[in-house]
Amino acid sequence: MKIPPVKGTRDFYPPDMAVRNWIIDGWKRASLRNGFEEYDGPIFEYLKMFQVKSGDEIAEQLFSLKDRGGRDLALRPEITPTLARMVNQRINSLPKPIKWFSVPRLFRAERPQKGRLREFFQWNVDIIGVDDVLADAEVIFCALDYLREVGLGPNDVVVKISSRKMLAALLQSIGVAEDELDDLYAVLDKRSRLPEDTFEKVLAESIMDDEKRTRILGLMGVESIDQLNAMADLTEQASESVEELRRVFELLGVMGVGDYCGFDIGIVRGLAYYTGIVYEIYDKASELRAIGGGGRYDNLLGQFGGPAVAATGFGIGDCVLAILLEEKGLLQKQLPARKLDYFVACVNEAYRQAAVKLTMELRSAGWTASFSYKASKLSKQLKEASDQNATSCVIIGSEIENDQLVVKNMAIGAQELIKFGKFLQQCHIES
Amino acid sequence: MKIPPVKGTRDFYPPDMAVRNWIIDGWKRASLRNGFEEYDGPIFEYLKMFQVKSGDEIAEQLFSLKDRGGRDLALRPEITPTLARMVNQRINSLPKPIKWFSVPRLFRAERPQKGRLREFFQWNVDIIGVDDVLADAEVIFCALDYLREVGLGPNDVVVKISSRKMLAALLQSIGVAEDELDDLYAVLDKRSRLPEDTFEKVLAESIMDDEKRTRILGLMGVESIDQLNAMADLTEQASESVEELRRVFELLGVMGVGDYCGFDIGIVRGLAYYTGIVYEIYDKASELRAIGGGGRYDNLLGQFGGPAVAATGFGIGDCVLAILLEEKGLLQKQLPARKLDYFVACVNEAYRQAAVKLTMELRSAGWTASFSYKASKLSKQLKEASDQNATSCVIIGSEIENDQLVVKNMAIGAQELIKFGKFLQQCHIES
Repeated sequence: MKIPPVKGTRDFYPPDMAVRNWIIDGWKRASLRNGFEEYDGPIFEYLKMFQVKSGDEIAEQLFSLKDRGGRDLALRPEITPTLARMVNQRINSLPKPIKWFSVPRLFRAERPQKGRLREFFQWNVDIIGVDDVLADAEVIFCALDYLREVGLGPNDVVVKISSRKMLAALLQSIGVAEDELDDLYAVLDKRSRLPEDTFEKVLAESIMDDEKRTRILGLMGVESIDQLNAMADLTEQASESVEELRRVFELLGVMGVGDYCGFDIGIVRGLAYYTGIVYEIYDKASELRAIGGGGRYDNLLGQFGGPAVAATGFGIGDCVLAILLEEKGLLQKQLPARKLDYFVACVNEAYRQAAVKLTMELRSAGWTASFSYKASKLSKQLKEASDQNATSCVIIGSEIENDQLVVKNMAIGAQELIKFGKFLQQCHIES
Repeated sequence: MKIPPVKGTRDFYPPDMAVRNWIIDGWKRASLRNGFEEYDGPIFEYLKMFQVKSGDEIAEQLFSLKDRGGRDLALRPEITPTLARMVNQRINSLPKPIKWFSVPRLFRAERPQKGRLREFFQWNVDIIGVDDVLADAEVIFCALDYLREVGLGPNDVVVKISSRKMLAALLQSIGVAEDELDDLYAVLDKRSRLPEDTFEKVLAESIMDDEKRTRILGLMGVESIDQLNAMADLTEQASESVEELRRVFELLGVMGVGDYCGFDIGIVRGLAYYTGIVYEIYDKASELRAIGGGGRYDNLLGQFGGPAVAATGFGIGDCVLAILLEEKGLLQKQLPARKLDYFVACVNEAYRQAAVKLTMELRSAGWTASFSYKASKLSKQLKEASDQNATSCVIIGSEIENDQLVVKNMAIGAQELIKFGKFLQQCHIES
């Protein structure tokens, strides 16, 4: 019986796992040094958690299942609803601001494509309880702090930033009704992925009025914040949100990551729950899907039955990021090499038990240690030690009758005869 | 809209996540120093992967789901079938022996009980390609190496060891047919969890013959390997497997963990695929469910469409382990404290931008650093620094006009006025 893996999932053999661990460990380190604490939720939640506020695309791509009582569950496609649920559950006892991060495994029931799998990891960083855009800038800094650490510079990646609040104000001043906005966001979010004429056709299905449509297309052609400021007919709300956006760029400059960031009015975000600053991170050449994205979602906690609390955060997936790191030659050379502190060899079967005993003693003292399962020739065992990248090889032979053993430095090849007890003592002190 | 979490799942708030990370990091460290490499598979596989060889209990408790094409999938209840699939897929290219570990998240659709949840983590350690019981002893050592490291001694935990191969030989010599064995194992596995008379009734349903049943009950009363050796009518196969079991205990003694291990003929294991040494790890007082268990499964790779390859390994879950560590007072005191290298305070709003800038510079240099979102009084910011367990608090005030700042050692309270550039230089060198 030979059963294949499910399409769109990954088998992490040790070399793949090393990549996954290196990426995730980097995310964790960056989060911690930026003052975030780790949390996680369950892999599945009640289905309706993801149907209400996430937007149609996510709701359509859910892996659903049932529990023993027939209740509808779903594998999580994102962690933000879980975060909202968890924070709401303890809203009164959690000290604010809440600075949390997570590295959830997420699921998406769709056709697998390059950089888009059915099962993936996503770094999520959120600040809850701060309505100042300083928090938006700080989470963007955190993402860039990681990307810079792994060697991606402003020539490799770009954060394209806009504001939902500003877009809403501008669209409303054009005459789009508030209840038309959600559908329009979904259309505008597709703009960069569609040919121009296809996009205009899709837009025409949503906005019938020719003049309104022309003004929307004109708005989407705006290329700078200055151009927005120069617009004659800005409403008060629009002006305020343009000013807020300008302040985000100023803060990102102060934080030393301004060269990674640019304004892009086309950034709308597919998710339904954003309310303020929104952004997406791309490879500079725009050859790949988004590396990640995020924004402010001040209403979500309220919509999940809690009080109205300001919130902002981002998600970065592992798939596109790994492709970009690989393409830039930044992956393999940064992976930590597998290393062995001691390989314990024995000259023949008679000393095998002593080799096993010593190996376990070294491990108990905290060293990474190995031995050979086969009573093979010493030269073969030394090769095994070298294959496993051992720093030292301990050789147990007839010297043990005089309570001695040989320690070989694998890098320079030098051997030393040393008293068993002294060797052990050293190992216990150094470990 | 308020949606609760699904019963039997866990929300990992930061303090819970700290426990989970501490346990899993310990598992990983122990695995690595024992020479194992990490792997992982997908969260879901085709349903039939878990229906064939895992045994009825596991098959009945599967969370099943369908992909978009209507194919039956299941959330993994264990990782061993995935391990078998992955090894089989690359059986010719993987260097042997294969020493792999994993920390999969697993799922079980059953009523949640103490130490038994619907979603949990399990440490899995396996050696593939070594038929010598040295490999069985080594994986048991690895489990104990971890348990000893976290402070659980031979008075806290016990590994109860037996042999499926031996039990099969003994049962067959009593007259149990080979095709009756699997069902009988399932019955015998329940023995320690049932009252004696209930167990005898259940056994009677499986074994009709009174004499055979009496002999089985007699066999299950055997308390030592010596008693087995003294049995007059041992078949050759039975003798061999008794000898093999004796050697496992000898090796565990050599490895320095003999005091944790005991023989228990009642250890049978629920899973259908074991073929040799089997064991379960319990709290010494036997008040909790098994902490973990494992054994040899030499036929599994073959049953999943690969060649016949020897294999042995164990699994230890996080739930019972955490309960035991908590009960023994070993949990809280070993959790690493949250710490902050620098808290950057400012004497008033005018110096806030400088505080933000410095915080980000410290983070970029690799330090854990934080600042206050509110322009609160310095005393409040110092309290915040202390709440976050900061080592130093940097205070930015009017001294910055002279290119200076104040660094306060939070442990002893001493303050130092230092040149901005010198401080930054030190930070970059030390990080």
